[in-house]
Amino acid sequence: MSDSHPRGSVAWAGHGIRVARAALTRLMEPADMPGLALIEALGPEEALALIESTVDSDATVEREVTEVLAAAGTRRWSGLAEALTRWRPRLVDIAPQRDLDTVRRFGGGLIIPEDDGWPQALHDLELGAPIALWRRGTRTLFPEQSRCIAVVGSRDCTSYGANVTAEIATSLVQRNFTVVSGGAYGIDAHAHRGALAVASGASALMAGGSPSLPLTKRESEAQPPTVAVMAGGVDRFYPSGNDELLHTITEQGMVLAEVPPGTNPTRYRFLQRNRLIAALCQATVVVEARWRSGALNTAHHAATLSRMVGAVPGSVYSANSAGCHRLLKEGAAVCVTDAADIAELAGSIGEHLVDEPTGDDALYDGLGTQDLLLLDALPLRTATTVDKLCVVAGLSAQTVLSGLGRLEVMGLAERLASGWKRRIW
Amino acid sequence: MSDSHPRGSVAWAGHGIRVARAALTRLMEPADMPGLALIEALGPEEALALIESTVDSDATVEREVTEVLAAAGTRRWSGLAEALTRWRPRLVDIAPQRDLDTVRRFGGGLIIPEDDGWPQALHDLELGAPIALWRRGTRTLFPEQSRCIAVVGSRDCTSYGANVTAEIATSLVQRNFTVVSGGAYGIDAHAHRGALAVASGASALMAGGSPSLPLTKRESEAQPPTVAVMAGGVDRFYPSGNDELLHTITEQGMVLAEVPPGTNPTRYRFLQRNRLIAALCQATVVVEARWRSGALNTAHHAATLSRMVGAVPGSVYSANSAGCHRLLKEGAAVCVTDAADIAELAGSIGEHLVDEPTGDDALYDGLGTQDLLLLDALPLRTATTVDKLCVVAGLSAQTVLSGLGRLEVMGLAERLASGWKRRIW
Repeated sequence: MSDSHPRGSVAWAGHGIRVARAALTRLMEPADMPGLALIEALGPEEALALIESTVDSDATVEREVTEVLAAAGTRRWSGLAEALTRWRPRLVDIAPQRDLDTVRRFGGGLIIPEDDGWPQALHDLELGAPIALWRRGTRTLFPEQSRCIAVVGSRDCTSYGANVTAEIATSLVQRNFTVVSGGAYGIDAHAHRGALAVASGASALMAGGSPSLPLTKRESEAQPPTVAVMAGGVDRFYPSGNDELLHTITEQGMVLAEVPPGTNPTRYRFLQRNRLIAALCQATVVVEARWRSGALNTAHHAATLSRMVGAVPGSVYSANSAGCHRLLKEGAAVCVTDAADIAELAGSIGEHLVDEPTGDDALYDGLGTQDLLLLDALPLRTATTVDKLCVVAGLSAQTVLSGLGRLEVMGLAERLASGWKRRIW
Repeated sequence: MSDSHPRGSVAWAGHGIRVARAALTRLMEPADMPGLALIEALGPEEALALIESTVDSDATVEREVTEVLAAAGTRRWSGLAEALTRWRPRLVDIAPQRDLDTVRRFGGGLIIPEDDGWPQALHDLELGAPIALWRRGTRTLFPEQSRCIAVVGSRDCTSYGANVTAEIATSLVQRNFTVVSGGAYGIDAHAHRGALAVASGASALMAGGSPSLPLTKRESEAQPPTVAVMAGGVDRFYPSGNDELLHTITEQGMVLAEVPPGTNPTRYRFLQRNRLIAALCQATVVVEARWRSGALNTAHHAATLSRMVGAVPGSVYSANSAGCHRLLKEGAAVCVTDAADIAELAGSIGEHLVDEPTGDDALYDGLGTQDLLLLDALPLRTATTVDKLCVVAGLSAQTVLSGLGRLEVMGLAERLASGWKRRIW
């Protein structure tokens, strides 16, 4: 094997599927379709072995990968030889066992598609599903898609966006949803904090208090209030200003990434990370976003995956709401103003009904046209006769009499010795 | 004739269609479907003659009215005799010639369906179209539906709603639209004022200045900047606090009502007035409305008539935006944030394109995945080699080289003696 592996110090193929997938997450960028097709065609270990070998072309493999790509809608690719020259320079950097040890030391692990705990929602990404997910935090089970809501938005949020986000996140957790976001500044951070505020009570969060470890199996498998899906490795929290927040998430929730420990976030990885957030969640809600914003990218991923998308409206003068309004204008999102709307959006129809605020006019809602005409005709101060009411309301005497009876029962009209008047409450 | 007309002092049937319709607007409440069916079946003069007579039943008329109502979707009605007892008590009040003289003195008139100037858009109300429209103001021609936008909302608007309304109305008039509203406090008043601000220049409006009368025919037939459709008579401005505003509208625009002079607005008449506003306009825009609001009634009328409905978003904390958000949530309205959106909504697609605000990210929009990966990999400070870029970006040497060429052309990468780095602007 060493002959066929001139660059790296150890050949990792043959160390098992988990190790192979761990290694492949370092060799391939997220959503590297030819790479994912190679893994699909050969399996993770064979795929890694091929990359570790000196073989530059293989007609059978080439054909299989081409077929997998074609089935996924990719008709053209640059071929196996070219792809191998992309992956092989990174062989010198792979150390999957060290990476696995690193996350284990953090109390984390690697979730692979072969695991029972693999989020089934990721299958909707089809060939674009991640090779594996690096996990960190006390919670070990990613919740079912139906219980996950992505709450995302711009980094430079307004105080309006911060407030709405915090309230929505808190209320979603109270409704047994997990709030998924990207761990960034702004809306993301407020979403995570709002979710944590329920889980721990404000005091533990403020004090940065840590629950006593280790948790029981039942505790560790409890639904996390919040999950941060990172564009870089789970060992290096980005941005550094959210370091404490992200540590709190590991204590009470979960941090995930498809890139291995030590990986820096890049623009490309942020965009691909967004597809994971969208895929993992039943609905994606954009609280604030500029006309162009990464959050819109997440929303579009969600729409592509036939997930529900919600947008929170705001002032037409706020550039930070322009992206949300854009989604609404384009029909790409549904207008949501609170957690109840979002719960409804997440599809639990009937379980979470929108509470209709009541207004002053509610009293008149049940009235028919003729009773409404009659009510309008009834004087407020001095009582009037049925004949006069007929003229004013434009109704027959019979209609007026029966209508007065109904209005009296409803407490809207009263009969005095001198005639009828409106009853004021 | 006097035998068959015991109540009123004069029998008005036989004085022509205009006089008959003028009289009928006083006998029948707006959208009195049996009454409108009677007019449809017999014509205005015959219908009025029947009401003025002592005839209490007529099998032929009864059958014809029933047929007209059935064709309009009304399967049951209380019959001719009952309807006559509704209309006849008001015969003592009719004085159509006096009413016509009154509005003529105000420089107004009566627009009837038989006139060339009858708004064709009202035909969409089918049987529910008004009997006639009482008009007041220097402008005599109601504009085509395609040039009319209804801007409506709650009476107790916020300063946010006031600002948005004024800006939208001004900008709509600048785009050659007529702003139609209901002359009420709040959003309605700001809509009218915003529209007048363009027509007259701010100075004339502030000074309450009146244009020199009479206008030429061409001037009087010019498109009015704004039209107020009232729930009461055009001779009594309601609410009284808007008296000066409504007078200004008569000087530079038009005031309309389907009820005759001297009529008070009632709840029922407000609701029916809303159907006129909706029917007259290409699109109805709700700027601010509470969860229950008359403006939503206008919006629903518009939707029923297959007119476009727009809603302006606002803070989720503002009760005055809750009705707008309700329309958006229910899919009953399109999100609009400015006059350009509304112009687009009004259907002149292509004529009024939404200007897409440009953002920082625009620079990268054209980049393919591989160039984006490469851009992410390029160092900001110290130049790096192509080999190193292959490892960092996960791209083949060939792809890196061609990508660097493209990025260099775009001004995003620069070549130094020591290698390549990102170019910062």
